[in-house]
Amino acid sequence: MKLTKDKKILIVGLGVIGAAYADALTEKGYCVLAITRSEETLEIARNRGIIYKGINKPEKAFVEQADVIVFALYPHVFEEWIENYQWMIKSGAVITDVTGVKSCIVYKIQDMLREDIEFVPAHPMAGRESKGIKYADKNVFKNANYIVTPTDKNTEEAVELCEDLGRVLGFLKISRLTPEKHDYMIAFLSQLTHVIAVSLMTAGEDDSLYDYSGDSFRDLTRIANINDEMWSELFTLNREALLKEINKFEIQLDKMKQYIDTADKNGMRDMMKQSTKNKLAFDEKYRKKS
Amino acid sequence: MKLTKDKKILIVGLGVIGAAYADALTEKGYCVLAITRSEETLEIARNRGIIYKGINKPEKAFVEQADVIVFALYPHVFEEWIENYQWMIKSGAVITDVTGVKSCIVYKIQDMLREDIEFVPAHPMAGRESKGIKYADKNVFKNANYIVTPTDKNTEEAVELCEDLGRVLGFLKISRLTPEKHDYMIAFLSQLTHVIAVSLMTAGEDDSLYDYSGDSFRDLTRIANINDEMWSELFTLNREALLKEINKFEIQLDKMKQYIDTADKNGMRDMMKQSTKNKLAFDEKYRKKS
Repeated sequence: MKLTKDKKILIVGLGVIGAAYADALTEKGYCVLAITRSEETLEIARNRGIIYKGINKPEKAFVEQADVIVFALYPHVFEEWIENYQWMIKSGAVITDVTGVKSCIVYKIQDMLREDIEFVPAHPMAGRESKGIKYADKNVFKNANYIVTPTDKNTEEAVELCEDLGRVLGFLKISRLTPEKHDYMIAFLSQLTHVIAVSLMTAGEDDSLYDYSGDSFRDLTRIANINDEMWSELFTLNREALLKEINKFEIQLDKMKQYIDTADKNGMRDMMKQSTKNKLAFDEKYRKKS
Repeated sequence: MKLTKDKKILIVGLGVIGAAYADALTEKGYCVLAITRSEETLEIARNRGIIYKGINKPEKAFVEQADVIVFALYPHVFEEWIENYQWMIKSGAVITDVTGVKSCIVYKIQDMLREDIEFVPAHPMAGRESKGIKYADKNVFKNANYIVTPTDKNTEEAVELCEDLGRVLGFLKISRLTPEKHDYMIAFLSQLTHVIAVSLMTAGEDDSLYDYSGDSFRDLTRIANINDEMWSELFTLNREALLKEINKFEIQLDKMKQYIDTADKNGMRDMMKQSTKNKLAFDEKYRKKS
Protein backbone atom coordinates (compact mmCIF):
# COMPACT_ATOMS: atom_id res chain seq x y z
CA MET A 1 0.00 0.00 0.00
CA LYS A 2 1.18 3.51 -0.85
CA LEU A 3 0.08 6.65 0.98
CA THR A 4 -1.83 8.03 -2.00
CA LYS A 5 -4.43 10.74 -1.51
CA ASP A 6 -7.33 8.30 -1.86
CA LYS A 7 -6.32 6.60 1.39
CA LYS A 8 -8.57 7.27 4.35
CA ILE A 9 -6.71 7.97 7.57
CA LEU A 10 -8.35 7.49 10.94
CA ILE A 11 -6.91 9.28 13.96
CA VAL A 12 -7.88 7.78 17.30
CA GLY A 13 -7.47 10.41 20.03
CA LEU A 14 -7.57 14.11 19.15
CA GLY A 15 -5.16 15.26 21.82
CA VAL A 16 -2.35 17.70 21.26
CA ILE A 17 -0.56 15.31 18.89
CA GLY A 18 -3.54 13.54 17.30
CA ALA A 19 -5.21 16.83 16.42
CA ALA A 20 -1.99 18.19 14.93
CA TYR A 21 -1.81 15.05 12.76
CA ALA A 22 -5.42 15.63 11.68
CA ASP A 23 -4.69 19.24 10.83
CA ALA A 24 -1.55 18.49 8.81
CA LEU A 25 -3.13 15.60 6.91
CA THR A 26 -6.33 17.49 6.09
CA GLU A 27 -4.26 20.36 4.79
CA LYS A 28 -2.35 17.96 2.55
CA GLY A 29 -5.65 16.79 1.05
CA TYR A 30 -6.23 13.52 2.89
CA CYS A 31 -9.64 12.41 4.09
CA VAL A 32 -9.22 12.38 7.87
CA LEU A 33 -11.60 10.51 10.14
CA ALA A 34 -11.41 10.79 13.90
CA ILE A 35 -12.57 9.02 17.01
CA THR A 36 -12.17 10.85 20.27
CA ARG A 37 -14.03 10.54 23.56
CA SER A 38 -15.00 14.14 24.14
CA GLU A 39 -17.86 15.65 22.16
CA GLU A 40 -16.41 19.09 22.87
CA THR A 41 -13.10 18.11 21.25
CA LEU A 42 -14.95 16.83 18.18
CA GLU A 43 -16.81 20.11 17.96
CA ILE A 44 -13.54 22.07 18.02
CA ALA A 45 -12.06 19.78 15.36
CA ARG A 46 -15.08 20.25 13.13
CA ASN A 47 -15.05 24.01 13.58
CA ARG A 48 -11.36 24.17 12.75
CA GLY A 49 -12.08 22.02 9.70
CA ILE A 50 -9.29 19.58 10.51
CA ILE A 51 -11.38 16.40 10.20
CA TYR A 52 -13.77 15.11 7.58
CA LYS A 53 -15.92 13.16 10.03
CA GLY A 54 -15.68 12.24 13.68
CA ILE A 55 -17.47 10.13 16.29
CA ASN A 56 -16.96 9.69 20.02
CA LYS A 57 -16.81 5.93 20.30
CA PRO A 58 -15.71 3.14 17.94
CA GLU A 59 -18.30 1.86 15.44
CA LYS A 60 -17.55 -0.85 12.91
CA ALA A 61 -19.04 0.99 9.90
CA PHE A 62 -16.82 3.97 10.67
CA VAL A 63 -13.57 2.20 11.62
CA GLU A 64 -13.60 -0.20 8.67
CA GLN A 65 -13.39 2.68 6.20
CA ALA A 66 -9.82 3.45 7.26
CA ASP A 67 -6.79 2.28 5.31
CA VAL A 68 -4.40 3.72 7.87
CA ILE A 69 -5.09 4.22 11.56
CA VAL A 70 -3.00 6.40 13.87
CA PHE A 71 -3.39 5.74 17.59
CA ALA A 72 -2.63 8.91 19.52
CA LEU A 73 -3.56 7.55 22.93
CA TYR A 74 -1.97 6.85 26.28
CA PRO A 75 -0.19 3.48 26.10
CA HIS A 76 -2.64 1.56 28.28
CA VAL A 77 -5.64 3.04 26.43
CA PHE A 78 -4.08 2.03 23.11
CA GLU A 79 -3.72 -1.54 24.38
CA GLU A 80 -7.32 -1.65 25.58
CA TRP A 81 -8.55 -0.27 22.28
CA ILE A 82 -6.80 -3.00 20.29
CA GLU A 83 -8.10 -5.67 22.64
CA ASN A 84 -11.70 -4.49 22.41
CA TYR A 85 -12.09 -3.12 18.91
CA GLN A 86 -9.51 -4.58 16.53
CA TRP A 87 -12.27 -6.74 15.06
CA MET A 88 -13.66 -3.55 13.49
CA ILE A 89 -10.50 -2.83 11.48
CA LYS A 90 -10.46 -3.53 7.75
CA SER A 91 -8.30 -6.42 6.59
CA GLY A 92 -5.00 -5.17 5.14
CA ALA A 93 -5.03 -1.90 7.08
CA VAL A 94 -1.79 -0.49 8.46
CA ILE A 95 -1.88 0.91 11.97
CA THR A 96 0.70 3.10 13.67
CA ASP A 97 1.00 5.07 16.90
CA VAL A 98 2.69 8.07 18.53
CA THR A 99 3.69 6.44 21.82
CA GLY A 100 6.79 7.83 23.50
CA VAL A 101 8.04 4.44 24.72
CA LYS A 102 8.44 1.45 22.51
CA SER A 103 9.74 -1.96 23.72
CA CYS A 104 7.05 -2.31 26.37
CA ILE A 105 4.20 -1.76 23.97
CA VAL A 106 5.35 -2.68 20.45
CA TYR A 107 5.71 -6.45 20.94
CA LYS A 108 2.58 -6.67 23.04
CA ILE A 109 0.44 -4.99 20.39
CA GLN A 110 2.00 -6.93 17.55
CA ASP A 111 1.43 -10.21 19.44
CA MET A 112 -2.23 -9.54 20.12
CA LEU A 113 -2.99 -8.13 16.66
CA ARG A 114 -4.89 -10.00 13.94
CA GLU A 115 -2.64 -11.53 11.26
CA ASP A 116 -4.20 -9.44 8.49
CA ILE A 117 -3.39 -6.06 10.04
CA GLU A 118 0.12 -4.63 10.40
CA PHE A 119 1.32 -2.38 13.20
CA VAL A 120 4.31 -0.15 12.42
CA PRO A 121 5.35 1.66 15.61
CA ALA A 122 6.40 5.31 15.38
CA HIS A 123 7.33 8.13 17.70
CA PRO A 124 6.90 11.72 16.51
CA MET A 125 9.28 13.57 18.85
CA ALA A 126 7.30 16.76 19.06
CA GLY A 127 5.84 16.95 22.51
CA ARG A 128 4.23 20.02 23.99
CA GLU A 129 3.97 20.99 27.62
CA SER A 130 0.21 21.52 27.31
CA LYS A 131 -2.33 18.86 26.52
CA GLY A 132 -5.51 18.87 24.48
CA ILE A 133 -6.67 19.94 21.04
CA LYS A 134 -6.48 23.64 21.93
CA TYR A 135 -2.69 23.42 21.92
CA ALA A 136 -2.44 21.28 18.78
CA ASP A 137 -0.12 22.88 16.27
CA LYS A 138 1.17 21.17 13.15
CA ASN A 139 4.10 23.57 12.97
CA VAL A 140 5.83 21.72 15.82
CA PHE A 141 6.69 18.96 13.34
CA LYS A 142 8.86 21.23 11.19
CA ASN A 143 11.98 20.97 13.35
CA ALA A 144 11.26 17.60 14.84
CA ASN A 145 12.36 13.99 14.44
CA TYR A 146 10.01 11.23 13.40
CA ILE A 147 11.25 7.83 14.46
CA VAL A 148 9.95 4.52 13.18
CA THR A 149 10.79 1.47 15.30
CA PRO A 150 10.01 -1.60 13.20
CA THR A 151 10.44 -5.22 14.35
CA ASP A 152 10.96 -8.53 12.52
CA LYS A 153 7.23 -8.78 12.11
CA ASN A 154 7.06 -5.70 9.87
CA THR A 155 7.14 -5.63 6.08
CA GLU A 156 9.35 -3.14 4.28
CA GLU A 157 6.33 -1.83 2.40
CA ALA A 158 4.40 -0.92 5.56
CA VAL A 159 7.47 0.64 7.17
CA GLU A 160 7.92 2.83 4.10
CA LEU A 161 4.28 3.82 4.23
CA CYS A 162 4.78 4.88 7.81
CA GLU A 163 7.89 6.87 6.89
CA ASP A 164 5.90 8.53 4.12
CA LEU A 165 3.36 9.54 6.73
CA GLY A 166 6.16 11.28 8.64
CA ARG A 167 7.20 13.10 5.47
CA VAL A 168 3.63 14.19 4.68
CA LEU A 169 3.28 15.50 8.23
CA GLY A 170 6.29 17.70 7.56
CA PHE A 171 8.88 16.24 9.93
CA LEU A 172 12.42 17.43 9.45
CA LYS A 173 14.06 14.07 9.85
CA ILE A 174 12.78 10.51 9.51
CA SER A 175 14.81 7.72 11.14
CA ARG A 176 14.59 4.05 11.96
CA LEU A 177 15.66 2.63 15.30
CA THR A 178 15.07 -0.64 17.08
CA PRO A 179 12.51 -0.32 19.89
CA GLU A 180 15.33 -0.93 22.40
CA LYS A 181 17.68 1.70 20.98
CA HIS A 182 14.75 4.11 20.86
CA ASP A 183 13.98 3.56 24.53
CA TYR A 184 17.59 4.07 25.57
CA MET A 185 17.76 7.25 23.49
CA ILE A 186 14.49 8.61 24.85
CA ALA A 187 15.49 7.77 28.42
CA PHE A 188 18.61 9.88 28.10
CA LEU A 189 17.48 12.77 25.89
CA SER A 190 13.94 13.25 27.07
CA GLN A 191 12.91 11.36 30.19
CA LEU A 192 16.07 12.13 32.17
CA THR A 193 15.74 15.81 31.32
CA HIS A 194 12.17 15.79 32.64
CA VAL A 195 13.27 14.02 35.83
CA ILE A 196 15.93 16.69 36.32
CA ALA A 197 13.61 19.61 35.61
CA VAL A 198 10.99 18.31 38.06
CA SER A 199 13.63 17.65 40.73
CA LEU A 200 15.08 21.13 40.30
CA MET A 201 11.70 22.84 40.26
CA THR A 202 10.73 21.15 43.53
CA ALA A 203 14.10 21.61 45.24
CA GLY A 204 13.61 25.30 46.02
CA GLU A 205 12.08 26.21 49.33
CA ASP A 206 11.78 29.91 48.80
CA ASP A 207 9.56 31.44 46.11
CA SER A 208 11.07 34.86 46.62
CA LEU A 209 14.24 33.67 44.87
CA TYR A 210 12.37 33.59 41.56
CA ASP A 211 12.53 37.38 41.58
CA TYR A 212 16.21 37.16 40.77
CA SER A 213 16.11 34.43 38.18
CA GLY A 214 18.20 34.73 35.07
CA ASP A 215 17.96 32.67 31.89
CA SER A 216 19.66 29.52 33.10
CA PHE A 217 17.09 28.57 35.72
CA ARG A 218 14.29 29.36 33.30
CA ASP A 219 15.85 27.15 30.61
CA LEU A 220 16.39 24.22 32.94
CA THR A 221 12.80 24.33 34.15
CA ARG A 222 10.95 25.05 30.91
CA ILE A 223 9.62 21.49 30.89
CA ALA A 224 8.84 21.45 34.64
CA ASN A 225 5.20 22.17 33.80
CA ILE A 226 4.43 18.55 33.11
CA ASN A 227 1.46 16.34 32.25
CA ASP A 228 1.72 14.07 35.30
CA GLU A 229 -0.72 11.46 34.02
CA MET A 230 1.20 10.86 30.82
CA TRP A 231 4.75 11.16 32.11
CA SER A 232 4.23 8.93 35.15
CA GLU A 233 2.99 6.28 32.73
CA LEU A 234 5.91 6.76 30.34
CA PHE A 235 8.47 6.70 33.18
CA THR A 236 6.97 3.49 34.54
CA LEU A 237 6.90 1.81 31.15
CA ASN A 238 10.54 2.69 30.45
CA ARG A 239 11.62 2.10 34.03
CA GLU A 240 14.77 0.09 33.48
CA ALA A 241 16.31 2.27 30.76
CA LEU A 242 15.45 5.42 32.65
CA LEU A 243 16.98 4.25 35.94
CA LYS A 244 20.21 3.48 34.08
CA GLU A 245 20.36 7.02 32.68
CA ILE A 246 19.55 8.62 36.04
CA ASN A 247 22.41 6.65 37.54
CA LYS A 248 24.85 7.83 34.88
CA PHE A 249 23.82 11.40 35.55
CA GLU A 250 24.17 10.93 39.31
CA ILE A 251 27.69 9.61 38.90
CA GLN A 252 28.67 12.83 37.13
CA LEU A 253 26.82 14.98 39.64
CA ASP A 254 28.59 13.24 42.52
CA LYS A 255 31.91 13.71 40.80
CA MET A 256 31.34 17.45 40.50
CA LYS A 257 30.15 17.59 44.10
CA GLN A 258 33.35 15.91 45.27
CA TYR A 259 35.45 18.40 43.31
CA ILE A 260 33.58 21.29 44.86
CA ASP A 261 33.75 19.78 48.34
CA THR A 262 37.53 19.38 48.11
CA ALA A 263 37.99 22.67 46.20
CA ASP A 264 39.61 20.65 43.41
CA LYS A 265 39.62 23.27 40.67
CA ASN A 266 41.48 21.07 38.21
CA GLY A 267 38.89 18.33 38.56
CA MET A 268 36.12 20.86 37.98
CA ARG A 269 37.88 22.37 35.02
CA ASP A 270 38.51 19.01 33.35
CA MET A 271 34.86 18.14 33.66
CA MET A 272 33.79 21.56 32.39
CA LYS A 273 36.15 21.24 29.43
CA GLN A 274 34.62 17.87 28.58
CA SER A 275 31.20 19.44 28.90
CA THR A 276 32.13 22.29 26.56
CA LYS A 277 33.57 19.84 24.05
CA ASN A 278 30.45 17.67 24.10
CA LYS A 279 28.25 20.74 23.85
CA LEU A 280 30.07 21.97 20.76
CA ALA A 281 29.71 18.52 19.16
CA PHE A 282 26.04 18.62 20.04
CA ASP A 283 25.58 22.10 18.57
CA GLU A 284 27.29 20.99 15.38
CA LYS A 285 24.82 18.13 14.94
CA TYR A 286 21.92 20.30 15.94
CA ARG A 287 22.83 23.04 13.48
CA LYS A 288 23.14 20.56 10.62
CA LYS A 289 19.70 19.26 11.51
CA SER A 290 17.99 22.65 11.45
CA MET B 1 28.37 61.96 45.19
CA LYS B 2 25.76 61.75 42.43
CA LEU B 3 26.30 59.95 39.14
CA THR B 4 26.19 63.15 37.10
CA LYS B 5 27.59 63.21 33.58
CA ASP B 6 30.77 64.99 34.66
CA LYS B 7 31.85 61.92 36.63
CA LYS B 8 34.69 59.92 35.16
CA ILE B 9 34.15 56.18 35.27
CA LEU B 10 37.05 53.75 35.09
CA ILE B 11 36.40 50.15 34.03
CA VAL B 12 39.09 47.69 35.05
CA GLY B 13 38.89 44.63 32.82
CA LEU B 14 37.27 44.85 29.38
CA GLY B 15 35.89 41.32 29.30
CA VAL B 16 32.42 40.40 28.17
CA ILE B 17 30.84 42.32 31.07
CA GLY B 18 33.34 45.16 31.49
CA ALA B 19 33.21 46.04 27.80
CA ALA B 20 29.40 45.99 27.82
CA TYR B 21 29.54 48.45 30.75
CA ALA B 22 31.93 50.66 28.79
CA ASP B 23 29.68 50.57 25.76
CA ALA B 24 26.50 51.40 27.68
CA LEU B 25 28.13 54.20 29.70
CA THR B 26 29.81 55.83 26.69
CA GLU B 27 26.49 55.76 24.87
CA LYS B 28 24.86 57.52 27.82
CA GLY B 29 27.46 60.28 27.58
CA TYR B 30 29.88 59.38 30.35
CA CYS B 31 33.62 59.70 30.04
CA VAL B 32 34.78 56.09 30.24
CA LEU B 33 38.37 55.16 31.03
CA ALA B 34 39.62 51.61 30.84
CA ILE B 35 42.48 49.48 32.04
CA THR B 36 42.79 46.04 30.55
CA ARG B 37 45.76 43.76 30.10
CA SER B 38 45.51 42.98 26.42
CA GLU B 39 46.57 45.59 23.88
CA GLU B 40 44.38 43.83 21.32
CA THR B 41 41.33 44.28 23.52
CA LEU B 42 42.12 47.98 23.94
CA GLU B 43 42.39 48.30 20.19
CA ILE B 44 38.98 46.75 19.70
CA ALA B 45 37.50 49.02 22.39
CA ARG B 46 38.97 52.10 20.72
CA ASN B 47 37.75 51.04 17.29
CA ARG B 48 34.28 50.42 18.61
CA GLY B 49 34.43 53.82 20.27
CA ILE B 50 33.29 52.49 23.62
CA ILE B 51 36.07 54.08 25.71
CA TYR B 52 37.50 57.56 25.92
CA LYS B 53 40.99 56.42 26.87
CA GLY B 54 42.59 53.13 27.83
CA ILE B 55 45.89 51.72 29.07
CA ASN B 56 47.12 48.21 29.70
CA LYS B 57 48.47 48.53 33.21
CA PRO B 58 47.62 50.73 36.19
CA GLU B 59 49.28 54.18 36.31
CA LYS B 60 48.61 56.67 39.06
CA ALA B 61 47.99 59.67 36.79
CA PHE B 62 45.36 57.65 34.95
CA VAL B 63 43.64 55.90 37.86
CA GLU B 64 43.37 59.02 40.01
CA GLN B 65 41.14 60.73 37.46
CA ALA B 66 38.30 58.33 38.17
CA ASP B 67 35.38 59.19 40.43
CA VAL B 68 33.87 55.76 40.09
CA ILE B 69 35.74 52.53 39.39
CA VAL B 70 34.12 49.29 38.25
CA PHE B 71 36.18 46.13 38.72
CA ALA B 72 35.17 43.56 36.12
CA LEU B 73 37.80 41.00 37.02
CA TYR B 74 38.04 37.46 38.31
CA PRO B 75 37.69 37.53 42.10
CA HIS B 76 41.33 36.74 42.91
CA VAL B 77 42.58 39.28 40.35
CA PHE B 78 40.30 41.92 41.86
CA GLU B 79 41.80 41.21 45.29
CA GLU B 80 45.36 41.45 43.97
CA TRP B 81 44.58 44.70 42.19
CA ILE B 82 43.29 46.33 45.37
CA GLU B 83 46.30 45.11 47.33
CA ASN B 84 48.79 46.44 44.81
CA TYR B 85 47.23 49.56 43.37
CA GLN B 86 44.64 51.02 45.70
CA TRP B 87 47.16 53.72 46.60
CA MET B 88 46.54 55.17 43.12
CA ILE B 89 42.83 55.73 43.70
CA LYS B 90 41.57 59.26 44.32
CA SER B 91 40.33 60.02 47.83
CA GLY B 92 36.52 59.93 47.96
CA ALA B 93 36.12 57.62 44.98
CA VAL B 94 33.43 54.94 44.98
CA ILE B 95 34.39 51.53 43.70
CA THR B 96 32.12 48.67 42.73
CA ASP B 97 32.43 45.27 41.06
CA VAL B 98 30.60 42.67 39.00
CA THR B 99 31.66 39.55 40.91
CA GLY B 100 29.20 36.65 40.87
CA VAL B 101 29.88 35.63 44.49
CA LYS B 102 29.76 38.01 47.39
CA SER B 103 30.37 36.99 51.03
CA CYS B 104 33.82 35.59 50.30
CA ILE B 105 35.07 38.76 48.65
CA VAL B 106 33.02 41.70 49.93
CA TYR B 107 34.27 41.75 53.53
CA LYS B 108 37.83 40.99 52.50
CA ILE B 109 37.97 43.93 50.09
CA GLN B 110 36.22 46.29 52.48
CA ASP B 111 38.63 45.32 55.26
CA MET B 112 41.76 45.92 53.21
CA LEU B 113 40.51 49.13 51.60
CA ARG B 114 41.70 52.62 52.51
CA GLU B 115 39.30 54.50 54.80
CA ASP B 116 38.73 57.28 52.25
CA ILE B 117 37.44 55.00 49.48
CA GLU B 118 34.11 53.17 49.58
CA PHE B 119 33.40 49.79 48.01
CA VAL B 120 29.78 49.03 47.13
CA PRO B 121 29.51 45.44 45.90
CA ALA B 122 27.21 44.67 42.99
CA HIS B 123 26.34 41.74 40.76
CA PRO B 124 24.92 42.40 37.31
CA MET B 125 23.17 39.07 36.58
CA ALA B 126 23.77 39.07 32.88
CA GLY B 127 26.29 36.38 32.13
CA ARG B 128 27.12 35.11 28.70
CA GLU B 129 28.45 31.72 27.72
CA SER B 130 31.29 33.30 25.73
CA LYS B 131 34.09 35.38 27.16
CA GLY B 132 35.93 38.41 25.84
CA ILE B 133 35.15 41.81 24.42
CA LYS B 134 34.00 40.33 21.10
CA TYR B 135 30.90 38.98 22.78
CA ALA B 136 30.22 42.12 24.85
CA ASP B 137 26.66 43.29 24.28
CA LYS B 138 24.98 45.98 26.34
CA ASN B 139 21.55 44.68 25.32
CA VAL B 140 21.90 41.75 27.71
CA PHE B 141 21.19 44.18 30.57
CA LYS B 142 17.69 44.98 29.36
CA ASN B 143 16.03 41.90 30.82
CA ALA B 144 18.46 41.35 33.65
CA ASN B 145 18.68 41.91 37.39
CA TYR B 146 21.24 44.18 38.98
CA ILE B 147 21.84 43.32 42.61
CA VAL B 148 23.63 45.51 45.12
CA THR B 149 24.88 43.77 48.26
CA PRO B 150 25.82 46.49 50.76
CA THR B 151 27.22 45.88 54.23
CA ASP B 152 27.24 47.89 57.47
CA LYS B 153 30.31 49.68 56.21
CA ASN B 154 28.45 51.29 53.31
CA THR B 155 26.82 54.72 53.25
CA GLU B 156 23.35 55.15 51.84
CA GLU B 157 24.67 57.75 49.41
CA ALA B 158 27.22 55.42 47.83
CA VAL B 159 24.72 52.56 47.64
CA GLU B 160 22.32 54.86 45.79
CA LEU B 161 25.09 55.90 43.42
CA CYS B 162 25.70 52.25 42.67
CA GLU B 163 22.00 51.63 42.09
CA ASP B 164 21.97 54.64 39.75
CA LEU B 165 24.79 53.01 37.84
CA GLY B 166 22.57 49.93 37.36
CA ARG B 167 19.76 52.17 36.10
CA VAL B 168 22.05 54.03 33.68
CA LEU B 169 23.29 50.68 32.35
CA GLY B 170 19.70 49.81 31.52
CA PHE B 171 19.01 46.96 33.92
CA LEU B 172 15.39 45.89 34.23
CA LYS B 173 15.39 45.49 37.97
CA ILE B 174 17.61 46.86 40.71
CA SER B 175 17.56 45.08 44.09
CA ARG B 176 19.40 45.02 47.38
CA LEU B 177 20.35 41.80 49.12
CA THR B 178 22.76 40.93 51.90
CA PRO B 179 25.90 39.23 50.59
CA GLU B 180 24.75 36.00 52.28
CA LYS B 181 21.26 36.01 50.78
CA HIS B 182 22.80 36.80 47.42
CA ASP B 183 25.12 33.81 47.64
CA TYR B 184 22.32 31.45 48.62
CA MET B 185 20.20 32.76 45.75
CA ILE B 186 22.98 32.50 43.21
CA ALA B 187 23.89 28.99 44.40
CA PHE B 188 20.36 27.81 43.71
CA LEU B 189 19.39 29.75 40.60
CA SER B 190 22.65 29.88 38.75
CA GLN B 191 25.46 27.70 40.10
CA LEU B 192 23.31 24.62 40.68
CA THR B 193 21.90 24.90 37.15
CA HIS B 194 25.45 25.00 35.76
CA VAL B 195 26.44 21.98 37.86
CA ILE B 196 23.42 20.12 36.47
CA ALA B 197 24.04 21.13 32.86
CA VAL B 198 27.69 20.04 33.03
CA SER B 199 26.78 16.75 34.69
CA LEU B 200 24.12 16.04 32.08
CA MET B 201 26.34 17.01 29.17
CA THR B 202 29.07 14.65 30.37
CA ALA B 203 26.74 11.77 31.28
CA GLY B 204 26.12 10.63 27.72
CA GLU B 205 28.41 7.99 26.28
CA ASP B 206 27.10 7.96 22.77
CA ASP B 207 27.33 10.99 20.47
CA SER B 208 25.01 9.40 17.94
CA LEU B 209 22.10 10.05 20.28
CA TYR B 210 22.38 13.78 19.59
CA ASP B 211 20.86 13.09 16.17
CA TYR B 212 17.53 12.53 17.84
CA SER B 213 17.56 15.39 20.28
CA GLY B 214 14.46 17.44 20.82
CA ASP B 215 14.14 20.77 22.57
CA SER B 216 14.33 19.58 26.15
CA PHE B 217 17.89 18.27 26.02
CA ARG B 218 19.01 21.37 24.16
CA ASP B 219 17.41 23.63 26.78
CA LEU B 220 18.94 21.78 29.71
CA THR B 221 22.42 21.96 28.19
CA ARG B 222 22.43 25.49 26.75
CA ILE B 223 24.83 26.58 29.51
CA ALA B 224 26.99 23.42 29.26
CA ASN B 225 29.48 25.39 27.15
CA ILE B 226 31.15 26.92 30.14
CA ASN B 227 34.10 29.15 31.00
CA ASP B 228 35.94 26.65 33.20
CA GLU B 229 38.42 29.14 34.62
CA MET B 230 35.74 31.47 35.90
CA TRP B 231 33.17 28.95 37.05
CA SER B 232 35.62 26.73 38.91
CA GLU B 233 36.66 29.83 40.84
CA LEU B 234 33.06 30.87 41.53
CA PHE B 235 32.08 27.34 42.64
CA THR B 236 35.05 27.17 44.99
CA LEU B 237 34.36 30.60 46.48
CA ASN B 238 30.71 29.77 47.11
CA ARG B 239 31.43 26.18 48.12
CA GLU B 240 29.28 25.87 51.20
CA ALA B 241 26.11 27.46 49.80
CA LEU B 242 26.45 25.51 46.57
CA LEU B 243 26.88 22.14 48.28
CA LYS B 244 23.71 22.79 50.25
CA GLU B 245 21.75 23.43 47.06
CA ILE B 246 23.19 20.39 45.30
CA ASN B 247 22.10 18.30 48.27
CA LYS B 248 18.56 19.67 48.13
CA PHE B 249 18.40 18.84 44.45
CA GLU B 250 19.77 15.34 45.05
CA ILE B 251 17.11 14.66 47.67
CA GLN B 252 14.43 15.40 45.08
CA LEU B 253 16.19 13.40 42.40
CA ASP B 254 16.49 10.40 44.73
CA LYS B 255 12.84 10.70 45.62
CA MET B 256 11.84 10.57 41.95
CA LYS B 257 14.22 7.68 41.37
CA GLN B 258 12.60 5.72 44.19
CA TYR B 259 9.15 6.35 42.75
CA ILE B 260 10.30 5.12 39.35
CA ASP B 261 12.08 2.12 40.83
CA THR B 262 8.96 1.03 42.70
CA ALA B 263 6.62 2.09 39.86
CA ASP B 264 4.87 4.38 42.34
CA LYS B 265 2.83 6.46 39.92
CA ASN B 266 1.07 8.39 42.66
CA GLY B 267 4.38 9.44 44.14
CA MET B 268 5.59 10.58 40.71
CA ARG B 269 2.37 12.41 40.01
CA ASP B 270 2.39 14.25 43.33
CA MET B 271 5.90 15.44 42.67
CA MET B 272 5.05 16.42 39.09
CA LYS B 273 2.00 18.35 40.30
CA GLN B 274 4.18 20.23 42.78
CA SER B 275 6.61 20.93 39.96
CA THR B 276 3.86 22.25 37.70
CA LYS B 277 2.53 24.44 40.51
CA ASN B 278 5.97 25.89 41.25
CA LYS B 279 6.62 26.41 37.56
CA LEU B 280 3.40 28.38 37.13
CA ALA B 281 4.31 30.55 40.13
CA PHE B 282 7.73 31.06 38.60
CA ASP B 283 6.27 32.00 35.20
CA GLU B 284 3.95 34.47 36.88
CA LYS B 285 6.90 36.25 38.51
CA TYR B 286 8.96 36.01 35.37
CA ARG B 287 6.22 37.49 33.20
CA LYS B 288 5.73 40.40 35.56
CA LYS B 289 9.45 41.04 35.37
CA SER B 290 9.64 41.14 31.58
